Amino acid sequence: IENTNKLILNKTNINFKILGISAKNKNKKRIFDINKYTWFDNPLDLIKIKNCDIFIELIGEEKGLSFNLVKLALENKMHVVTANKALLANNGLELFKIAEKNQVSLLYEAAVAGGIPIIKTLKNNIFLNNISKISGILNGTTNYILTKMSEENLDFNEVINIAKSKGYTSDNEAELDIGGLDSAHKLTILATLCFGSKINFFNNDITGISEIKIIDIKNADKLGYKIKLISEASLINNKIYCITGPKLISKDNPLASVDGVLNAINIETDQLKNLFLEGEGAGGKATASSIMSDLYEITTQSDINSLGYKVDSLIDFQKLDMMEKKSSFYVRIMTKDTAGVLSKITSFFKDSNISIEKILQLPDPDTKQSVPIIISTHEVKKNELMVAINQIEKQNFVLDKIIIIPIDKNI
Amino acid sequence: IENTNKLILNKTNINFKILGISAKNKNKKRIFDINKYTWFDNPLDLIKIKNCDIFIELIGEEKGLSFNLVKLALENKMHVVTANKALLANNGLELFKIAEKNQVSLLYEAAVAGGIPIIKTLKNNIFLNNISKISGILNGTTNYILTKMSEENLDFNEVINIAKSKGYTSDNEAELDIGGLDSAHKLTILATLCFGSKINFFNNDITGISEIKIIDIKNADKLGYKIKLISEASLINNKIYCITGPKLISKDNPLASVDGVLNAINIETDQLKNLFLEGEGAGGKATASSIMSDLYEITTQSDINSLGYKVDSLIDFQKLDMMEKKSSFYVRIMTKDTAGVLSKITSFFKDSNISIEKILQLPDPDTKQSVPIIISTHEVKKNELMVAINQIEKQNFVLDKIIIIPIDKNI
Repeated sequence: IENTNKLILNKTNINFKILGISAKNKNKKRIFDINKYTWFDNPLDLIKIKNCDIFIELIGEEKGLSFNLVKLALENKMHVVTANKALLANNGLELFKIAEKNQVSLLYEAAVAGGIPIIKTLKNNIFLNNISKISGILNGTTNYILTKMSEENLDFNEVINIAKSKGYTSDNEAELDIGGLDSAHKLTILATLCFGSKINFFNNDITGISEIKIIDIKNADKLGYKIKLISEASLINNKIYCITGPKLISKDNPLASVDGVLNAINIETDQLKNLFLEGEGAGGKATASSIMSDLYEITTQSDINSLGYKVDSLIDFQKLDMMEKKSSFYVRIMTKDTAGVLSKITSFFKDSNISIEKILQLPDPDTKQSVPIIISTHEVKKNELMVAINQIEKQNFVLDKIIIIPIDKNI
Repeated sequence: IENTNKLILNKTNINFKILGISAKNKNKKRIFDINKYTWFDNPLDLIKIKNCDIFIELIGEEKGLSFNLVKLALENKMHVVTANKALLANNGLELFKIAEKNQVSLLYEAAVAGGIPIIKTLKNNIFLNNISKISGILNGTTNYILTKMSEENLDFNEVINIAKSKGYTSDNEAELDIGGLDSAHKLTILATLCFGSKINFFNNDITGISEIKIIDIKNADKLGYKIKLISEASLINNKIYCITGPKLISKDNPLASVDGVLNAINIETDQLKNLFLEGEGAGGKATASSIMSDLYEITTQSDINSLGYKVDSLIDFQKLDMMEKKSSFYVRIMTKDTAGVLSKITSFFKDSNISIEKILQLPDPDTKQSVPIIISTHEVKKNELMVAINQIEKQNFVLDKIIIIPIDKNI
């Protein structure tokens, strides 16, 4: 911290002073010596420090203490810097309103995509672009899991345990990560910055990665795709569309090469065919970089609103019915190894007017009793596809839930 | 422009008004109707418009009219937005001083890497990071040429003609592009933003791509690399190092996958292992996006200096002697097809204590009279390598200038 402060002084003539710190457990082992700083047993006392300009919240609760502290700090006309995506995605609107009323900033660069300055890119750098779509890999843990499964041919559960042992995720976090919630929290914030939409976590459709098997990764590869947990938002016919879920993406799409714990985001606008950012999605240093960037923004006293837009101008877009959206789909059906199965399945597709692009039927050595049939479809509305899928699932040759993953054919 | 203005009004309540325009040729065919705007035959009259806040310069001269107009505008306390890298790299220091004195902005997002907001990323977003290295592909034309040579097995000259026919480069621009000057102009600006160094075009070592042959691209591929025109800057032992030239980069390096006219930049800092940005490096819309981002920055009235740093605090670093820098190298020697050549060459390397990593000797169907010998070395200072190279070049079995390209082993 001292080294950083010297650098900052050299660069900017700004001298940040830490007036107090607090945490749940004072005696936890830390990489810095907390005795250099004034410790507060009760974090609420931090808000009462006189002449303190900025409050930094890194607790991470969706409401509770995080909410109370941030709210109090803003009400006391302190700027707030936070890394708390769950808080902002669920309860941000009220907080941003207080910040605006009190003419202080509520900044959150560290809340989305770690060290990638995506918030400032959207809010400050390309704010006058008309953004048509944003898509990204916003959770390092799930991307690590999918990468590891793919590269080392490991089972989902094996990789989870490695991820936990490496500290990439904990029992508490794993559910948020794997279930896609953490990504959806981040996407909620990005969607507001991109489209001026009211912060609304309920705009999200969320699917996790726990149903993805190695066989899906292998078959996707044969079809020319990689499977990634993609978070994507756009406005279609003036309705908002925020979806987080596994997706088959073309190997030529820059998101396909984002491996391990990295995060990445691709932006399409009226002026830019693509703007792609990639970097570390988590970790102490990446988080510190983003927090520092918020502190710097506060010192520059720019007129930019914390959300880019004024809170009252945010629009409460209707949510797009995902069932109505056309896409190609990857379908995996686990079947009994009996005659005539393939022809029955294809006839159901034919009856529903769904046009099949490719079929793969390759025996899976890991599942001797069952034969996976992989089908990629041409573009179809999901509700139309579901008619066929529901009928097929009723057949007694189908052994397991049918897995459906959208395919992104764009590069 | 009207559509954009409506979007901007919706987003920000800012209403930009175009008070006048000028260009060399009024009657040139344009994609918009100039009659909507007040035309000035003499661009100097634009500076005299009353109540005009911002002057936009898109002429592109290194000095001359561009310099005079920008200087006058700044002296008249108008903010200036420019896309002119040659102007800033060669004569920027004087202009930034005037801007600072008159408390106006001189902004230049469009001058580097087209639509990628790299200037604002460095100057505003990650300014408090201590940057150790920046490297990038900053010229779309040369990247297009190298990509096309590689993908379609075409000769350098054939591809140049295609690039001209597609409008990617003109006879006038081709020299700046191919010779690496355009990239070096951009790198000069980036180096100042990264290291607080005095803007100094003479810090650059520049090599173009005209000596690269298909055979080099093919052999690099066999060794696991791609050849790209890379611009790279860092501080080593408090000396500055700005180099633009062809480089063999590992296929796992994200810059290796940047194809066609795209630009990309990779940044390494004390806080971020890598931050990678990719997007369109040229074109009207990408340029417009960056100009709009500068206009927006001006409206936010932030306290940020146009260069991030105050002009007087910029440091005049000594230039690193590139001959002293260690690197691995790719060496291509065109030889007569006679016995003993390889053993003679390797003995020269041995005498100079240069350790060879790999040797490829594959007859080239295109050059029947000569046999190319390709050598990749372990790390060595370039001046030590040159001792061996100069001796080898004197041998009568060597048919052509020996080509030396540094290898970047980092991912």
